[in-house]
Amino acid sequence: MKKLEIVYGIHPLIEALLAKKIIKKIFFQRGFQQVSNTYKKIIHLSKKENIPIQTVTKQKFYQLKNKNHQGVFGILSPIKTYKIENLLPMFYEKGKNPLLVILDRITDVRNFGSIVRTSACVGADAIIIPKKSTAMIGSDSIKTSSGALFKLPICQEKNIKNTIEFLMKYGFKIVSATEKSNVYWYDIDFSGPIAVILGNEEKGISTKYLEISCEKVKIPVIKGISSLNVSVACGIILYEVFRQRKYHSKTHF
Amino acid sequence: MKKLEIVYGIHPLIEALLAKKIIKKIFFQRGFQQVSNTYKKIIHLSKKENIPIQTVTKQKFYQLKNKNHQGVFGILSPIKTYKIENLLPMFYEKGKNPLLVILDRITDVRNFGSIVRTSACVGADAIIIPKKSTAMIGSDSIKTSSGALFKLPICQEKNIKNTIEFLMKYGFKIVSATEKSNVYWYDIDFSGPIAVILGNEEKGISTKYLEISCEKVKIPVIKGISSLNVSVACGIILYEVFRQRKYHSKTHF
Repeated sequence: MKKLEIVYGIHPLIEALLAKKIIKKIFFQRGFQQVSNTYKKIIHLSKKENIPIQTVTKQKFYQLKNKNHQGVFGILSPIKTYKIENLLPMFYEKGKNPLLVILDRITDVRNFGSIVRTSACVGADAIIIPKKSTAMIGSDSIKTSSGALFKLPICQEKNIKNTIEFLMKYGFKIVSATEKSNVYWYDIDFSGPIAVILGNEEKGISTKYLEISCEKVKIPVIKGISSLNVSVACGIILYEVFRQRKYHSKTHF
Repeated sequence: MKKLEIVYGIHPLIEALLAKKIIKKIFFQRGFQQVSNTYKKIIHLSKKENIPIQTVTKQKFYQLKNKNHQGVFGILSPIKTYKIENLLPMFYEKGKNPLLVILDRITDVRNFGSIVRTSACVGADAIIIPKKSTAMIGSDSIKTSSGALFKLPICQEKNIKNTIEFLMKYGFKIVSATEKSNVYWYDIDFSGPIAVILGNEEKGISTKYLEISCEKVKIPVIKGISSLNVSVACGIILYEVFRQRKYHSKTHF
């Protein structure tokens, strides 16, 4: 994983601060509206954590010139990644009914960030990504995730097929989102432990994962229209899990 | 509406060609992989419509240098917009059970494009946007919509409040997506004519529209996590409409 260098924008930075991430230094751009409450919140939280703040000129923001940085960025340590086999016992100890999202070669950082954001919103327990062929966990994905990358554990696994087989042994239902199915997404029983696989923006999910999936589900689209964006498809499936679980047990979420 | 100038990227261009949009000229960048099937499809479709193609150097792509143009763009005429009062009789003549999406000050072109794409996928009948305070219908939103902006009618209305009241008279249920509600999105009956309102990324839906909505629905998020992206929320609600209607009538979609 490439070393994470910066996080920019007001809300991602506040999320990073609230999540107690190790931030080395925060930079404000001179002349930005640093009197607003959100800026004050950053200053307040930084003081609490003894993080130095420096006000600098526009030049310091040069590398972010095409980004919506809102006049603030922080230098921080890389996001910690996990192994799913270490997390699973903790989920069960906490009495969770786990919901995982496996990303098979999602390469667009915005899609990746958006999927993390939605997964965090619905209360998913972890995201599983491969070591290679995946969007970088960097400042762009943090920004798109609206800071959720600091809240949801990200598991990086060498061999996704092994991970899928491991999860199946642990009683997970593996559900692949694919157009190559006639089963609609809401016709699956999502009540038990679930791992949803989402595939590459162009190629979809690898055949080797489709073959071992317990269920293949389709979100139908009107003929002649291109497919759904993967992060939107993610939201539709994860919130169907929410709907069904809420229906089965009023106390789960 | 600003005059539309260009559409870039392979799939948006193919969509524009298939939708018989008036394209003045198509430009290929020299050196791109124009031997692939998708490029050949553009060439084939352009010949059919007598659209001139020119292969040019990188310099001609200068204004698109930060875009994922995939070595191709076309110059075309602006997208036509409609009035909802002219479309409604057509929907009913065709025996449709209309599904409309009203956007209240959605300003991010990517969110706008993504909403149009999802709406087209699910089979919505039109998008309604205000004349002012809305994302521009331009090349960026066409790209994010994956060409769906050429397929789904866009209605521009001067006064959205009047439009909502007009739709209510026509028997539409107006459903606002808002955090200011305790009703979950799936607890609403979506079987009849529906207009879903989605609000500004920061401010949500204007109070004046919330007040006259028939239903206010919430997609819950885990505490301490920021809200869902509006285009993801759109997908969740529209596909719940699909799910319910499919359940009520196996023939509707």
